Amino acid sequence: MSKNKINLVFPDGSKKEFDAGITGTTITQGISEGLLRKAVGIKLNNTLFDLNAPLSESGDFKILTFEDEEGKTIFRHSSAHLMAQALVRVFPEAKLTIGPVVSEGFYYDVDHPPFKPEDLIKIEEEMKKIVKEDIEIKRKEISTKEALKLFSGNDYKQEIIKNIEEFGEGKTEKSDTVSLYTQGEFFDLCRGPHLPRTGMIKAFKLLKVAGAYWRGDSKNKQLQRVYGISFPDKKELTSYLTLIEEAEKRDHRKLGKALDLFQFHEYSPGSPFFFPKGAAMYNELLTFVRSEYKKRGYDEVITPLIYDKALWEISGHWEHYKEDMFLLNVDGREFSLKPMNCPSHLLMYKTKTKSYRDLPWRVADFAPLHRNELKGVLGGLTRVRKFSQDDAHIFCTEDQMQDEIFAMLDFVDYVYTKVFEMTYKISIGTKPEKAMGSDALWEKAEHALISSLDSKKIPFKISKGDGAFYGPKIDIRITDALNREWQCATIQLDFQMPLRFDATYEGQDGSKHTPLMIHRAILGSLERFLGILVEHFAGRFPLWLSPIQVKLLTISERHEVFADSVYEKLSNQNIRVEKDYRSESINKKVRDAQLEQANYIVVIGDKEQESESVNVRTRSGSILGAKKTEQFIAELLEEIKNKRIS
Amino acid sequence: MSKNKINLVFPDGSKKEFDAGITGTTITQGISEGLLRKAVGIKLNNTLFDLNAPLSESGDFKILTFEDEEGKTIFRHSSAHLMAQALVRVFPEAKLTIGPVVSEGFYYDVDHPPFKPEDLIKIEEEMKKIVKEDIEIKRKEISTKEALKLFSGNDYKQEIIKNIEEFGEGKTEKSDTVSLYTQGEFFDLCRGPHLPRTGMIKAFKLLKVAGAYWRGDSKNKQLQRVYGISFPDKKELTSYLTLIEEAEKRDHRKLGKALDLFQFHEYSPGSPFFFPKGAAMYNELLTFVRSEYKKRGYDEVITPLIYDKALWEISGHWEHYKEDMFLLNVDGREFSLKPMNCPSHLLMYKTKTKSYRDLPWRVADFAPLHRNELKGVLGGLTRVRKFSQDDAHIFCTEDQMQDEIFAMLDFVDYVYTKVFEMTYKISIGTKPEKAMGSDALWEKAEHALISSLDSKKIPFKISKGDGAFYGPKIDIRITDALNREWQCATIQLDFQMPLRFDATYEGQDGSKHTPLMIHRAILGSLERFLGILVEHFAGRFPLWLSPIQVKLLTISERHEVFADSVYEKLSNQNIRVEKDYRSESINKKVRDAQLEQANYIVVIGDKEQESESVNVRTRSGSILGAKKTEQFIAELLEEIKNKRIS
Repeated sequence: MSKNKINLVFPDGSKKEFDAGITGTTITQGISEGLLRKAVGIKLNNTLFDLNAPLSESGDFKILTFEDEEGKTIFRHSSAHLMAQALVRVFPEAKLTIGPVVSEGFYYDVDHPPFKPEDLIKIEEEMKKIVKEDIEIKRKEISTKEALKLFSGNDYKQEIIKNIEEFGEGKTEKSDTVSLYTQGEFFDLCRGPHLPRTGMIKAFKLLKVAGAYWRGDSKNKQLQRVYGISFPDKKELTSYLTLIEEAEKRDHRKLGKALDLFQFHEYSPGSPFFFPKGAAMYNELLTFVRSEYKKRGYDEVITPLIYDKALWEISGHWEHYKEDMFLLNVDGREFSLKPMNCPSHLLMYKTKTKSYRDLPWRVADFAPLHRNELKGVLGGLTRVRKFSQDDAHIFCTEDQMQDEIFAMLDFVDYVYTKVFEMTYKISIGTKPEKAMGSDALWEKAEHALISSLDSKKIPFKISKGDGAFYGPKIDIRITDALNREWQCATIQLDFQMPLRFDATYEGQDGSKHTPLMIHRAILGSLERFLGILVEHFAGRFPLWLSPIQVKLLTISERHEVFADSVYEKLSNQNIRVEKDYRSESINKKVRDAQLEQANYIVVIGDKEQESESVNVRTRSGSILGAKKTEQFIAELLEEIKNKRIS
Repeated sequence: MSKNKINLVFPDGSKKEFDAGITGTTITQGISEGLLRKAVGIKLNNTLFDLNAPLSESGDFKILTFEDEEGKTIFRHSSAHLMAQALVRVFPEAKLTIGPVVSEGFYYDVDHPPFKPEDLIKIEEEMKKIVKEDIEIKRKEISTKEALKLFSGNDYKQEIIKNIEEFGEGKTEKSDTVSLYTQGEFFDLCRGPHLPRTGMIKAFKLLKVAGAYWRGDSKNKQLQRVYGISFPDKKELTSYLTLIEEAEKRDHRKLGKALDLFQFHEYSPGSPFFFPKGAAMYNELLTFVRSEYKKRGYDEVITPLIYDKALWEISGHWEHYKEDMFLLNVDGREFSLKPMNCPSHLLMYKTKTKSYRDLPWRVADFAPLHRNELKGVLGGLTRVRKFSQDDAHIFCTEDQMQDEIFAMLDFVDYVYTKVFEMTYKISIGTKPEKAMGSDALWEKAEHALISSLDSKKIPFKISKGDGAFYGPKIDIRITDALNREWQCATIQLDFQMPLRFDATYEGQDGSKHTPLMIHRAILGSLERFLGILVEHFAGRFPLWLSPIQVKLLTISERHEVFADSVYEKLSNQNIRVEKDYRSESINKKVRDAQLEQANYIVVIGDKEQESESVNVRTRSGSILGAKKTEQFIAELLEEIKNKRIS
């Protein structure tokens, strides 16, 4: 291979030689004009480049489009620049700060008085013009000195540039150059890459504006954070906006209140109050998990909630997690509310000498945990300060590790695929920056997880640096009815904590060994999972979980005695049944029961009373007709037992 | 009635006139010499007097003996003086401080280096001598000046005398006289009353010695607290000591550890760790209470554990209970871990407008509570810092109050009489010194409780000043197998808290009313109740509560497959079953299962395997013989369902 040639390996494995300095654009053009219209950037050896950047290296080569995660990021990042350009055209006094991509869309934080809804429309109109102008987007490297001059009058950008100079912020080392992207009159500091032209951003919408502090610090000035979403075509935008609307309808905070499941109160921010109906669902989830524990050999324990700082020093939480814990003073010493159960279980493990015969020990705990989430980020059940997990720790020998991991993956699969009928994706989180323990142990643990999944041919991806501070993990992301992903289950290997606690067992060889500890949760935070279920089912829960399984309606007062007898029969079988004996019309009573999402609505009038039967319809209006009470109960019990999702 | 005469009304209602100045001794002698031998003091109009005190007032009159609670107190108080006299004879350098009566016996705190067991024997020997000497015990009033001179060289007594001078400590107002009791060469400051002679203390035993701080303050000097017990005759002492011994054997801390139920750890003083077997019992209690809740119309909720100080200010806890709460800093504000559920339930009550149709609302909560008990008084499960109650609050109208109280008394009776087969006593606690709300409301509430019990002809006694700070209460004291009393259930009326929270409901009249709130618990603290159960049953729990219901023993390895099939069948019926497949002798395995208090011990050998049956014996050694597995399971399920106490 000549010095001026590069060899590129395409995703399909094909190889091709090019002149060094060739651009992605030229290569793409060589493939098809259609692809060129869709191409947003280049990935070469895991580094992203502008489509127009000259390429000088051989290696794995990919043309990115919006379909790729990285392509989406480039597209949205350019959308943020597009919005910024339009915003400054409309509001020239606004000062730009930073404008990153987020999981759903992008935002830009600007220093400006609060925007009104009509301001966003003006910005959108201007964005449309810029798209029409189809301006070329160009990159250049300039010295930090030049950059400081260019951004004089914008203190935020000045701070960013100085940080790059001193700390190489966003770069691998400190630097005296920065990259600048320009499109027409607009220029911005940016690492890139970006789209080649503004004309590619065919569909976008500014969604909302919210207050945000510079650098996320409430001591700094409050900025305006303008959120947007963008797509390469209008259809995608429309279906996204429909989804958002549906998600808003399903918002568990709204439904939670409407269905009387839970609420929050300013006197305990981030700690939910579960009303009887929510508590019934919560306890039903607990009962379900407990029944699985029984089958799968888990032991439940009940543990204290407050612990001496000395414990957290051993576990490493004092060093790595202190700011996330609520501290209190006990007997003149520093204590904290526990944020995790692991150290409790290590203390319990150590109360008795253990031998290999005692392992694996699978210890489960539903203790309420507290984590000091910032007040500003609290929201509904998905981000709380107080929650319980279906948490367990498995102490085992290294020999047992793989079987334990298989058993947990089976547990996960049973719960999500069989019971909740959801799909899920698996990723492995590797060593994070803030980590405990030697590289050798980390490699061993990461290898163990990867080979477990490989050996069962379970697909997964690697999330670099996403492990816990004590070890690598398998994260399971479920997909809900609106195609949103939620991280719930987790399986975390830990060779560190048992060492720190000096936990041991006597092996078959008669000498002492350190057990492996596996942290794992299936539903994760029960609070959060309940919130997800509310949105997934849009409040129309499967019978076994439903807070009102049957609503009993009487046609007139003279049917109450028979209705009471039906109520007793249902209630004695632990069926959650409610009465509606109001003197309202039966149509109104049916409608109200439907709004409450009662799974079965039973009407009792003369005919039913005479034939000792019940007249049943579903919440969605299907008429199931007359049934003998016993038959109805038997059917309910069967549906509950099978956890059927109707 | 002449001025020099007094009229005394005896307990049987008879009245008699005496010369003023007559003593209890003379009156008692007039009744019988036998009574005089037993008489320990006099109660006149609710004031206690020495037997030899001249009486100058008319009124209700009673001769106290050891049988009376107050008589016991006098007897034990004189026993403390007896011990102090002996102690100073043996150890003249010891400085006496205070020596009160406690619920079981008496103690004296003395400033002296630690005593050895043989020192206690020496003191006992000297006590015997003093009893034999039968010294007269005399009271006199002296000036505090004289007293200071008399007790010169004893800083503790000096402090006590000065406190009486300044604050009337132990008296109703400050005072320049103190009462002194002397017996032979011994004298002590004391309010009395006391026995007439040392010879009456026929049976006593010094039980133990422990460190204690002067005034209970760890900044002060540590004293030696010598504990003793005393009775009027030897038989009573012997049976008491036997009981103590039995109680020690049953000590739930020992049994809790031996049976693997729970333990404590210095990293969380006062918060129990329940191991799987203890957690199984704990959850069984919860399940039981929940099933009763379902029958009795209670709604369970799940609530936050930390609350803003603002809440406690409304509830009054900040003023009345702050020192008993664990405080923490949240969002820069003072929060506390909740010690009680009531304010949480008031917040929930208030989230929706209520009408009389919504009442009664019976809201139940098992939230973990935290109370900052002094570290020194923590002990096992009976005094903990973290616990859950089978706690509920009933919001009702005044009209509903009596029915609600009846329903609660029925609940109490069902649980204690029917399920646990225990007896109980009822007392009504009236307005305490530190109380909230007007006298009128207090009277109304106290009257309501008294008339409820009266109307059902349920016997009770009045405990003056024993109410909660927000209202009067019914306390239920159960009696355990060792005849010890425990306060568990409580029913507390509260007209205050709903007012403070401005909780209302719309009455039938269309206008706003304040609901009544009833705080109530049946088992009380589940932790404490579990501790009581351990001692009551001496670890031999009824089947439904037992952590190991069945232990499965194999005779040899070839029986494991069949044993496994039996295990599965039992386990599928939620029976708590454990395997013992060790290659130990069957006798050893039976003995071990008995030590673990497994209710049924099942042996599986060739015969059982062939006939597909199980060979059953009880933990107490009764041989129930061969049974078909299905038959055995059916019998177990029946016994569990009936909560039979075998």
